[in-house]
Amino acid sequence: MESVFDQYFYPDSICIVGASSKPKSLGYELTKSVKQYGYTGDLALVNPKADEILGFKCYPTISSIDYRIDLAIVMVPKQFVEETIKELIAKKTQAIILITAGFKETGEAGAEAEKRILQIIRDSNARLVGPNCMGIINALPSVKMNATFVAEEPKTGSMAFCSQSGAIGAAVLNSLRETDIRFGQFISVGNKADVNENDLLEYWQDCKDVSVITYYLESFVDGEKFIKYFIDDRITKPVIVLKGGRTSSGIKAASSHTGALGSSDKVVDAILTQFGIIRADDLNDMFNTAKGFEDFPTPKGNRVAVVTNAGGPAILTVDTLEKNNLALAELSPETKVKLKEIVHPEGSVNNPVDLLPGGIAEQFKAVNEILVQDENVDAVISVFVEPIMVKALPVIEGINDIKSEKPIFQVVMPLPEFWQEYRAESKTKRSLFRRPEDPAVVINNLLKFQNKKSNTGRIKSDESVNDFKLNEKPGKFLNPNEVAELCNHYKLPIVKDEIHSIQELNKREIHFPVVLKAVGEKIIHKTDLKGVVLNIKTKSDLIKTAEKMIWDFSSKNIQLDKFLIQPYLKTKFELLVGAFRDPSFGPMIMFGSGGKYVEYLDDTVMRSAYLTENDIDEMINSTKVGKIIQGVRGEESIDIKVVKSAIKNLAQMIVNHKEITEVDLNPLLVTSENKIFAVDVFPPGPKI
Amino acid sequence: MESVFDQYFYPDSICIVGASSKPKSLGYELTKSVKQYGYTGDLALVNPKADEILGFKCYPTISSIDYRIDLAIVMVPKQFVEETIKELIAKKTQAIILITAGFKETGEAGAEAEKRILQIIRDSNARLVGPNCMGIINALPSVKMNATFVAEEPKTGSMAFCSQSGAIGAAVLNSLRETDIRFGQFISVGNKADVNENDLLEYWQDCKDVSVITYYLESFVDGEKFIKYFIDDRITKPVIVLKGGRTSSGIKAASSHTGALGSSDKVVDAILTQFGIIRADDLNDMFNTAKGFEDFPTPKGNRVAVVTNAGGPAILTVDTLEKNNLALAELSPETKVKLKEIVHPEGSVNNPVDLLPGGIAEQFKAVNEILVQDENVDAVISVFVEPIMVKALPVIEGINDIKSEKPIFQVVMPLPEFWQEYRAESKTKRSLFRRPEDPAVVINNLLKFQNKKSNTGRIKSDESVNDFKLNEKPGKFLNPNEVAELCNHYKLPIVKDEIHSIQELNKREIHFPVVLKAVGEKIIHKTDLKGVVLNIKTKSDLIKTAEKMIWDFSSKNIQLDKFLIQPYLKTKFELLVGAFRDPSFGPMIMFGSGGKYVEYLDDTVMRSAYLTENDIDEMINSTKVGKIIQGVRGEESIDIKVVKSAIKNLAQMIVNHKEITEVDLNPLLVTSENKIFAVDVFPPGPKI
Repeated sequence: MESVFDQYFYPDSICIVGASSKPKSLGYELTKSVKQYGYTGDLALVNPKADEILGFKCYPTISSIDYRIDLAIVMVPKQFVEETIKELIAKKTQAIILITAGFKETGEAGAEAEKRILQIIRDSNARLVGPNCMGIINALPSVKMNATFVAEEPKTGSMAFCSQSGAIGAAVLNSLRETDIRFGQFISVGNKADVNENDLLEYWQDCKDVSVITYYLESFVDGEKFIKYFIDDRITKPVIVLKGGRTSSGIKAASSHTGALGSSDKVVDAILTQFGIIRADDLNDMFNTAKGFEDFPTPKGNRVAVVTNAGGPAILTVDTLEKNNLALAELSPETKVKLKEIVHPEGSVNNPVDLLPGGIAEQFKAVNEILVQDENVDAVISVFVEPIMVKALPVIEGINDIKSEKPIFQVVMPLPEFWQEYRAESKTKRSLFRRPEDPAVVINNLLKFQNKKSNTGRIKSDESVNDFKLNEKPGKFLNPNEVAELCNHYKLPIVKDEIHSIQELNKREIHFPVVLKAVGEKIIHKTDLKGVVLNIKTKSDLIKTAEKMIWDFSSKNIQLDKFLIQPYLKTKFELLVGAFRDPSFGPMIMFGSGGKYVEYLDDTVMRSAYLTENDIDEMINSTKVGKIIQGVRGEESIDIKVVKSAIKNLAQMIVNHKEITEVDLNPLLVTSENKIFAVDVFPPGPKI
Repeated sequence: MESVFDQYFYPDSICIVGASSKPKSLGYELTKSVKQYGYTGDLALVNPKADEILGFKCYPTISSIDYRIDLAIVMVPKQFVEETIKELIAKKTQAIILITAGFKETGEAGAEAEKRILQIIRDSNARLVGPNCMGIINALPSVKMNATFVAEEPKTGSMAFCSQSGAIGAAVLNSLRETDIRFGQFISVGNKADVNENDLLEYWQDCKDVSVITYYLESFVDGEKFIKYFIDDRITKPVIVLKGGRTSSGIKAASSHTGALGSSDKVVDAILTQFGIIRADDLNDMFNTAKGFEDFPTPKGNRVAVVTNAGGPAILTVDTLEKNNLALAELSPETKVKLKEIVHPEGSVNNPVDLLPGGIAEQFKAVNEILVQDENVDAVISVFVEPIMVKALPVIEGINDIKSEKPIFQVVMPLPEFWQEYRAESKTKRSLFRRPEDPAVVINNLLKFQNKKSNTGRIKSDESVNDFKLNEKPGKFLNPNEVAELCNHYKLPIVKDEIHSIQELNKREIHFPVVLKAVGEKIIHKTDLKGVVLNIKTKSDLIKTAEKMIWDFSSKNIQLDKFLIQPYLKTKFELLVGAFRDPSFGPMIMFGSGGKYVEYLDDTVMRSAYLTENDIDEMINSTKVGKIIQGVRGEESIDIKVVKSAIKNLAQMIVNHKEITEVDLNPLLVTSENKIFAVDVFPPGPKI
């Protein structure tokens, strides 16, 4: 079945509603871009005050256009937008782009207007891109559509780019002649009232002209839906995301810019890592990585050979390998023998191979050919600083000519003339990199995509859970008995405890040593309130401590209802296993160093609770405490299966129970006998 | 007194020994650069086979030049280098640059030749730059000397750049027309046989034409001397360092490139932080920061206002503030009132201020003027993405015209034509930034320099120490008694312990519980060898444990001499205070999380042992454990004075005793009663 997005990206006909005859106005400039780039379909302009603009016929109304319109671009003033949308729907146009701004991003009145428009769209079979966006591009020669304000002429590639910010789109288009970024398709989605990143993910995955999907996003409209595509293994193309709004100030700025509530960056980072989605730190990294996927084979491993005519830049390249999970390849003895015949005796045949400034095109080509043949090499980075005596172009083109299944990434630091020359004369026009630090980032990203995630043991929502009902207490915490019941149901290793009044404590037979904890509806952060005392050894001590606690709490006006006593266990490690619900991505799970200093130790890792077995292993291994408990310095590993089960079972709990917003096992205590117990279960949070 | 470096950078006359008439040879191209840039002094070429080259007279020998030569540039083949240097010395030339390569960087024979040359220099009053370097530049209009291979014509600035790598120098020069980097002075120091970063630091500090000092370095020749300039408060200009060879692979590559042994990157990072030297992560950051110092006033604080016509790029800017220790300024109500009169009602008068794509030059100028007047704002970042309807140049120049003591950093994302236009037409030619992420790095670096380090309580080498003599045991560890004596002398809070044979243990009266440790010359990592048993409660347990230890060690063929017993203390925190000697920077000190998992916790900080009181506070506060022990979650701080004394006294010890290479107090134990004891002193290491 044809997707409506085919009408967006491959329209046979476009109309621009609000085309203008006034140069420098958006309505004029967008029309000019369409004309200048040479759109291959039919273009109808709607403007009641003109007969033609830039040689295209103007129609007074939408209905007066005498042929079918696939794609409508609407730039009328905002008071005419609703009417225009209705007319387009009447015209049976399904693909609508609303450029006009002044909606949700401007406050409440705008948000209301946006809602009304969305309702009109939802009641039809049309879709809406925008409002507050800057257009669409398909650079394919058979389409040649640049319907944006920026009249640049993008070169054709197979990269698709969706930008939530029009300005980021404009900045990228402004820079095309310098950055050599090539497009397959580009779309600016603005406020994402209707069409959002999820629609485009689905479309571009199926679109044969797209090989790499890139996003600039400031929010995820429906993160749980976004990750569902990956959970269901429907996405086979590389996806790269640059996320604006990472820090608390940035998130605040993004949310006032887009009107959307943001997830914390730790959540976004966890999600992208978990599902093999590549995160770019800036535009440079994003488009370099996209070029990496478009122009180069993916390496089979992480061993990199570096060849250069210039010590310093090669060292800067080598410095970037480690932090990008790459290794400097150990060249084979045969390779070194072969290299010795080419490399100047004062150069180096070790990695990085140094041809010295005198290294010429033939030497560069021969050395690169030898390096890609070495079994110990997965990828080559060739770094060339243009010296006066060797012209850059023959060096670069010689290396571009090498046929190999291994990628060769070229860094070039030439005189400025080179770039024009390369664009004009290169046969391959393969992407080059400008900074010695660039390729390592790209290789790391290619490998991240290569290392496909397995689905083994993926946690799914369990319908049978309906047998087990939580009490309905919206906005409340569960009481300790409910917590215990829930933990037992999910086989969480909680320590056996009892709850008593002070009178009962007096009567009971108790096995010392014990821990005493205050219980009360308002007593959440027990440690901060001094509501926990460890290692009480006698009955008289226990009663004295309990009495003091009652006194202390009453002096703070906090009601202390009862006491909880647990056996006192000798701690070797304190872990944390926690779960919470993110507003966009849904159920999340945490693991790491626990105890009362958890925020200060900052040694926790997060994932979506839709975990696989592999995810659980990765979580444990990516924390410091996770490495330590598995045995370092000659120690034995603790029983790691118990930790894994705790993570898995808690994940299952939060996936099953949409009414739980937060629950922490902290500490999950490892005793000196390597036994594992959850000592304190932070009560499951408010229901929705 | 005139410095010899005045003859390097301000020579009245130059001779090029090895000038060539063959285009594309180094000897020709360097001569061409000198001519083309318009050197204002006299130029003599030495070449016995030519009468003139590029219009300059050639002399057959150095001695035949009939006037004094201030600066000699030597590019003869390496077999003629020694003779040439001798002739120059005979000619009384003091400033010599040896371009020729093939010395230490190529192996042992080269290193020998370099040593011979260095001896010739040392026996004269001449200095030598190089070998294996690429020349020198002084861009001052009164000098106009470009004596490098790269015939670019640098614009004049007040930044001085010293590059250990010729290729990095060449790459920077190649890029000048695109990056708009301006020079005061540039020098490529190559192998640094004689002249090195220390000489240039001293010279540039005093040179009136230099305001910012930048380095690309792969090693510090004499780090202790380098930091001495800072300890002695002799450096008042900003110093920026880009260090190649950060990772283990990079350090290896750098050391094979330069033949120098590298300090670990943790050491380099600690030193640069401690002495307010700015570390750049790449060339872009280094030169952006240099431009920051040259072109902008330093902000008084870290509160940044952002103004933009483009939401997305502003968000990317805001995202970079936090990690660069900057805050988004809270604009005053008066500012917002004033902004409301200028900003479009659908834009934003909150920070980031959004003028929307229609924002024109007058609005940008007015908003920036208002922002710099706000008391809550220390610096402004103005981000402009060029839309079709507003030309960039008037916007940028309008803002450049603002007179203020607060800096305004402009990010511009224009069509490529803009840059040429700006270079040609801008009156101020103030530096602009290309990426929204750039200015935050620069502001952070300006502030790092601004926050001058105080010298209060600086540790100095103490001569009176000679009263206290360590046993002379080169390459050996001290025995426990010697360690105890040393620790007592330096008032380190060591736990009282006793050393006994197993027979003596049997006889002694002992206060239990105790810790038992194996003692022997080869027993260093006690825990790994299971040579430590904690919390022994009875005499019979003690003897049993000791007997088992003797048995276990003898089965491993390790001689166990005696046993050490200490009171068993109840641990609340385990700290580490350690000291070691770096091959370049000398005595270093460490603080952080201790205990046996110290490497896995990775929570330690280093500094040069020439500490100030402020340094000690910073060390404690920059570790997680340092924050925790000062009281979090309602806990009391431990007695932090004891920790500070331990750091200070151990620093004094390693500063005084050059014969100590390494000593660790690990763990420095904080008991549950908040008492602090050094339980295990890792024996001071081999003497030199």
